[in-house]
This record gives sequence, C-alpha cells and structure tokens, in this order.
Amino acid sequence: MYANGDVLVGEIIGTAILILFGAGVCAAVTLNHSKAKSAGWVVIAFGWGFGVLAGAYTAGPLSGGHLNPAVTLGIAIDTGKWGQVPLYILGQMIGAVLGAVLCWLAYYAQFQANADKETALPTLGIFSTAPEIRNTTANLLTEIIATVGLVLPILAFGLTEGLGESGTATLVVAFLVVGIGLSLGGPTGYAINPARDLGPRIAHALLPIPNKGGSDWSYSWIPVVGPLIGGALSGIVFNAAF
Amino acid sequence: MYANGDVLVGEIIGTAILILFGAGVCAAVTLNHSKAKSAGWVVIAFGWGFGVLAGAYTAGPLSGGHLNPAVTLGIAIDTGKWGQVPLYILGQMIGAVLGAVLCWLAYYAQFQANADKETALPTLGIFSTAPEIRNTTANLLTEIIATVGLVLPILAFGLTEGLGESGTATLVVAFLVVGIGLSLGGPTGYAINPARDLGPRIAHALLPIPNKGGSDWSYSWIPVVGPLIGGALSGIVFNAAF
Amino acid sequence: MYANGDVLVGEIIGTAILILFGAGVCAAVTLNHSKAKSAGWVVIAFGWGFGVLAGAYTAGPLSGGHLNPAVTLGIAIDTGKWGQVPLYILGQMIGAVLGAVLCWLAYYAQFQANADKETALPTLGIFSTAPEIRNTTANLLTEIIATVGLVLPILAFGLTEGLGESGTATLVVAFLVVGIGLSLGGPTGYAINPARDLGPRIAHALLPIPNKGGSDWSYSWIPVVGPLIGGALSGIVFNAAF
Amino acid sequence: MYANGDVLVGEIIGTAILILFGAGVCAAVTLNHSKAKSAGWVVIAFGWGFGVLAGAYTAGPLSGGHLNPAVTLGIAIDTGKWGQVPLYILGQMIGAVLGAVLCWLAYYAQFQANADKETALPTLGIFSTAPEIRNTTANLLTEIIATVGLVLPILAFGLTEGLGESGTATLVVAFLVVGIGLSLGGPTGYAINPARDLGPRIAHALLPIPNKGGSDWSYSWIPVVGPLIGGALSGIVFNAAF
Repeated sequence: MYANGDVLVGEIIGTAILILFGAGVCAAVTLNHSKAKSAGWVVIAFGWGFGVLAGAYTAGPLSGGHLNPAVTLGIAIDTGKWGQVPLYILGQMIGAVLGAVLCWLAYYAQFQANADKETALPTLGIFSTAPEIRNTTANLLTEIIATVGLVLPILAFGLTEGLGESGTATLVVAFLVVGIGLSLGGPTGYAINPARDLGPRIAHALLPIPNKGGSDWSYSWIPVVGPLIGGALSGIVFNAAF
Repeated sequence: MYANGDVLVGEIIGTAILILFGAGVCAAVTLNHSKAKSAGWVVIAFGWGFGVLAGAYTAGPLSGGHLNPAVTLGIAIDTGKWGQVPLYILGQMIGAVLGAVLCWLAYYAQFQANADKETALPTLGIFSTAPEIRNTTANLLTEIIATVGLVLPILAFGLTEGLGESGTATLVVAFLVVGIGLSLGGPTGYAINPARDLGPRIAHALLPIPNKGGSDWSYSWIPVVGPLIGGALSGIVFNAAF
Repeated sequence: MYANGDVLVGEIIGTAILILFGAGVCAAVTLNHSKAKSAGWVVIAFGWGFGVLAGAYTAGPLSGGHLNPAVTLGIAIDTGKWGQVPLYILGQMIGAVLGAVLCWLAYYAQFQANADKETALPTLGIFSTAPEIRNTTANLLTEIIATVGLVLPILAFGLTEGLGESGTATLVVAFLVVGIGLSLGGPTGYAINPARDLGPRIAHALLPIPNKGGSDWSYSWIPVVGPLIGGALSGIVFNAAF
Repeated sequence: MYANGDVLVGEIIGTAILILFGAGVCAAVTLNHSKAKSAGWVVIAFGWGFGVLAGAYTAGPLSGGHLNPAVTLGIAIDTGKWGQVPLYILGQMIGAVLGAVLCWLAYYAQFQANADKETALPTLGIFSTAPEIRNTTANLLTEIIATVGLVLPILAFGLTEGLGESGTATLVVAFLVVGIGLSLGGPTGYAINPARDLGPRIAHALLPIPNKGGSDWSYSWIPVVGPLIGGALSGIVFNAAF
C-alpha cells in the first residue's frame, strides 16, 4: 500500500502526463501548423498507448499508477480495499485537468492560430471524446465493452498495485491500450476512463481558446458512466471466474 | 496443468477478447461512421496482434492461453498430452462466437447504419477471412505456411503452457502475430486459427445484421483445415528437429 | 556452444522463417490481389523486424539465432571463436533459399496472376534489394553503415550466443531491425545480411515465376560485401572500444 | 559509476548511432530517390525512438547511455553527482556531429542528387528541428514540456545510470520517445535534446551538401535552452515529489 500523499501526487503527475500525451496526439493530428497534421488513426492509438506508458511509468513508484477511475474501481472490487479509492479518483481528476492545460500550453501557438472564425477547426475533439453516431444505448455499450477489454486483462494478470509496477507490465498495458484504440475506438473514440474524458472537458470549457466551440455537456455523462460500469463489471467477472 | 474448469473458462474469456479485438479492428476500418475507417493494413495487423496480447494475458492464469486449436494441436503433438485438447477447443469455439457477438454489440450503431440496400457494405470480412484469389490448393498452402510461422516459434521457445505465461512471452507472441499479418496475410487474410474463422462465421450467420450478405460456407473449411495441418506440421517438425 | 547439427538445423529453420516473413512482406505490398498492396514503408520495416523476431525466437534453442553472416562474422571477431563460422553461414544460405521458396508458395496464386506480359510487375524486389541510385561507392557505404548499426549494438549488449537468447533480447533486436529499415533503408533497401540478399536472389533465378524479370546479378555482390565489411568493422570497433 | 574514458567513448558511439538513425529517418522521408520518401509522421516518430534504442543499447555497458544533455542534467540534479556531467555532454556533442556525418554518408547519393537548384529540397530539416510557427515563448514552452515528458519518467523509474541499463528499460524508453514524437512533436519537431539539435546543425553548416540552404542559427538556441530547462525542471519536480 502506498502512502496517502504519494497516491495523490502520483496520480496527479501520472494522469497529467497521460493526458498531455493523449490530448497532445489529438492536437498533433487535428490542428493546422502541426507536423503530424492528418497523420491518421494509427498515430492516435499509439500516442494514447505511449501516454499510458509514460504516465504509469512515472506514477509507478508513488501510487502504482492507476490513472483511471475505472481501473481503480475494478481493483477495489477485486481486492476489497476501498479506503484509498476517493484519493485515487481525486488525483486522477486533478491530473487530467492539469494535463489538458499542459497540452494547451504545448500547442499554444497552434491554438492561437485557430483565430479566423470562418476557417476555425472545432477543438473539443482534442480534449474529449464524441461518438460518430449519437445513440445513448449503443454509445454506453461500446464504452462498457471497451473498458472491460482494458480492466479485465489488468486484473487477470494480477496488476492490483497499478499499471506501473514493472517495465514489462507497463509495456504490456501500453500495447493493450493501443489495441483498444485500434479495435474498439471506432464508434465513440474510446474514453474508457472517466477522468480522461471529464477532466479535459472541464479544461476545454475554462481555457481561453479562440473559436473553441461548445463542450458538448449533453454527451459528457456517457464516457463517465460507461467506463465505470465496465470497470465494475470487470471486477465482478474476475471475482467470479478467476 | 490447469484444472478442467479453469481451462474452459480461460479459453472462453481469452478467445472472446481476442475476437472482440480482432473482429473489432476489421469493423473499425470497414464500417462507415467509424473513426478508423480505411485506416489501412498496418492497423489491422496490429489490432489482431494486440488482440492476442489482451486475450492471452487474460487467459494466462486460468488456461495458459492457447486461444487457437492449431496451437493446442501443436502443443499436444509436442508434449504428448492429449487429455484436455477437446476442452481447449470447445472453449475456443464458444469464446470465438461470443467475441464476435461482443464486436457486433460494440459496433451496434455502425452495423445498424448499414441499412440502405443500395450502399450497404458486405460485412462478412469483419467476421471471417476470404481469399483474394479463390484457389483451393494455393489458399490451403498459404494458411498452412502462415500457421507454421506462428506455431513453430511458439513451440521452439518452450511455451507449452500457452501464450500468456509471462508478460514478455505474451509480448513476443503478440508481435509475432502482427508480423504474420503484415507478411503472410496478403493472400487469404491469415486465419491461422480455426476458431478465429469458424466461430465468427457462425455468429455472422446468426446475427440480425442489416444487409449482412452471405456467410460464404463453401470457403469455410479451408481456414479450419489449413491451420490444423499447419499446427500438426509444426509439432512434427519440432519433434524431429529440436 | 551449440552442437554442430543443432547449429545447422537452427540456422536453416531460423533463416527460412526470417526470409519467409521478409520476402513475404515485400510480396504483400508489391503483388496485385494482396490485401496489403501498397501498404507502405512502415509495413515493410515492421514486417522484416518481426521476421527477425520469429526466426531468432525459433532458432534460439538450437543455434542461438544468428541468421546473418555479418552477425556471425562480428561475433567471431569479438569472441575469437571461428570454428563454427562456416556451418553458421552454410545454414543461413540454405535457409535463405528455402525461405524464399516458402514465400513463393505462400503467394503462389498472386505470382501466377502476374501472367499478363503487358501489365506484369517486376518481381525481383520481393526477393532481393536494389538501390534507388546505382552508385557502387555510395551503395557499399550505405550497406556498411547500416550493418554497423545492426551488429555493433548486438555486440555491445553481449549477445554473443545469438539474437534469440531471451524473449527480451529478441524483442530489442527485432525493433532495432525495424529502426534500421525506417532510418537507413531508403537508399539501398537495407540488405545488411548477405544471406538475406543472395539466397532469395538464387531462388528468384531458379523459380518458375511468370514474367519474373532479371535477377540483376551485376549488383548482387554489393549486398554481400557491404554487410560483411560492416560486420567485421563492428567486431573491430567493439574490440577496440569496449 | 563508469570510468571517464568509457563515459566519453560510450556517449560518442551511442549518440552517433542515435543521430545516424534519427537524421537517417528524416533523410529517408525527405530526400528524393529514397524508398521511404513521404512515408509520414509515424515513420519519423518510430525511427527516432528506435534510434534511442540502438544508441542506448550500445552505450549501455560503457556509459549507461544518456545520449542527451537534458537527461544528464536531470540525473545530476536527482543524484547530486555533477563530476562527470561535462564529460557526458562533451561525448554527446561529438557523437551528435559524428552521427550527422554518418547519416550524410549513408544518404550520400541522395544528397548529391539534390543538385538542381530549381527543384532542390531544403536539407536542414534532416539535421535539425524548426518550428511550424515561429514564436519564441511558445516554442520554448513546447520544448520544455516535451522534455519534462521524457526526463521525469526516466527519473521516476530510477534509471539514474542511463537508458541502456537493461533490455526492458531500453525498450520502455524507446517507446516513450516514440510517444513524445507522436504527441508533442507537432509544433517544433521535438528536439528535447540539445546535442540532437546543435550537433547536426554544426554538421549541416560544415558539410559540402549541394543546395543545402541555411542553417537557421537564429532559432538554434531554443532547442538547446528549452530542453535544458525541461531537464532541470524534471530533476527539481522529481526531488520535490518522489
């Protein structure tokens, strides 16, 4: 078990790095004046996966590296230890907002260049997910299934401390996340992590980005609720089957 | 040796995850209203490879993680232990059907959007393989050679428990599968796994998908027989050479 | 030290698998009626890299897995053990021819479909390398530098048994080969391995492929001599610096 | 601690290999008559990442493998050991110039083919970075943030000897570098390493390349100062948080 202070700091830093990389790769392929403009889906999937690598690797010694309330929930159901759950989630939310702000700073000139109202690009997709087809049941289902695809393997392999326990485990989880992006990201953009979606959406709503467009709050509950159901389901299936 | 119940559950869950990811990536690049539409062959190859990673990683503690009757057959010839072979294959077949259903659910809105008869896309390619040139001998040969390329390395490295024995072994096998896809997937779409092809084909035949097209049963025996021959051949070559 | 018989068998099987994957990925992106047609340079580089993974992984227990006379030469200079060098190279040459034949069989229907003289594609590029600009000095230099980029890291990390010693080492070498392809493959197509180029060229000259075009023997010595110089140079630099 | 002579030789060789691969992949996608021409951002990011793999793997036994003054600075702040810092940086600078020369030799025929003034391509981008939008504050900020994304994870995971300590750690760092390229390379081309940018810029200024264009010295301080601030910041954050 990690000390409370370490958990908070670890999850803040780790999740901030995850979102910096993840929102960063979305900025990289979306914004004008970026060398990776339109570099395609494979770049997005690997960018997010290596964001998990970087974040979990960093958070590892402090908090194990959950970086995701759905992972925290699944591990809590598996282990029966609930005491630090609020702390983990608090750190993840703070880190996610912070990471989104860092991404905005890293791409500051590109965001500022989005100043012409006529040709401005929508920017929410850099921060948060949106479905290709808006359908509450289908979108929830996609997020639930994709999250089970993340959390069940993590539980099965006994990573109950977190994703950053060892270099090998962290690599495996990183490629697992790449795989989820490639395979299951098509319909909704794979939040699979409530903090990953809600934190940057809050940042998007607050940041002074030119022509940033709306923050789509009507959809915002799905990438929170869906992954939480998926994480809980993973814990339940794991306890039943393993 | 794993307990019978664990083998069954492990192979069902592991193969279901493999097919969820594998069929998922084919849905992702094929269907309209998917963010990965037309993302190319590299996405398909990595998607299937990381599906093996996810499935084997999950099944590891329960059944070792074969996920493939050709692997099970090769290991049985190598070790001479045949007692659990039917159980492994049963689990793999159930899991493959289940995984295809999960893929359909994850892409439910996209499948439903395939409703206009005039512009509907054929959907079998999301579930099962088809050759680019229909030629029984050549297609069989391709599947046999590609399966030897999978099973012989697995046997040579002593993974007689399965693909999910350790994080490193699982990573190596995942990239091996990516490599087979990149290098040997061109002619037939690399089934290299009877359950991977037959299970989703059964699901395709049963699921209520709009304009789904035929299930091409006349080809269906080749991606079953070819990989089984390849798996057996791997076991025989291994016993002779190593 | 490995037994003589194991060395021969291991290098034959391992190099055959390497070339099956490597020539396979070139066939996959070159030939018509292939699902990976025109899939791009990233596919070629990863395909060859994972071919090394598959071949070295398989040869590991028998011969350590050199699969490349330039590697064998570098290791011999490093360790001073020359006794099995001819055996290693013999196995590599036999394996390389065999692998090219297996690739031809795996893509048999695609090669046969190359039957129309007017539209036939040249096929040598599937088997062997060719420079983009024909310049003896420059081409030799490229092959020497790229081979040092392969063999020096291998020696520095102490892989004096071969590339298939452990899963982790094999993974590292595989990605090293991917990197050489991405970074140094541009000018000559990165033979970096005399057996990899000469073996398949012999196969190309002998196989009954429709409209196969010439085997370009005038260039054939460069991807043999260049990598051998590079391998020797690596051994010499290593002995001086480490 | 490594011997002084080993540190110098290790950093020279390791950084030379890093830049050979890194500048190499930029040459590969930029120059005419290269098989990887226009192969895209994913190729650049993986090429640089595997360059780190190759260089760190090689330098590992001699100097641990820093290959980057920002890494050296971060480690010095973390460990409080400053004695060999100048030696590390000296080796990195020499190695970076040497690596750029090797890249020029590997692509010699391609550089020579850039002889027509009318159609000549600018060549500085092969050697050094340039921002998409020229803005001192924003460019500095991007380099600082991206370098923290590199050095903080390295420190958190305890790689205080360098990046080449073990195969697994080297792999993790390689993919971390790929991730930084994909996610944070968009605005400035991610120097994240003063030697990586300044060394090749010196080589570019000196080498007799036809129509090479200017070496853009007015920008050259940003990819030196930014990464140094980022490395120092990583050490300070690490010492405060871990």
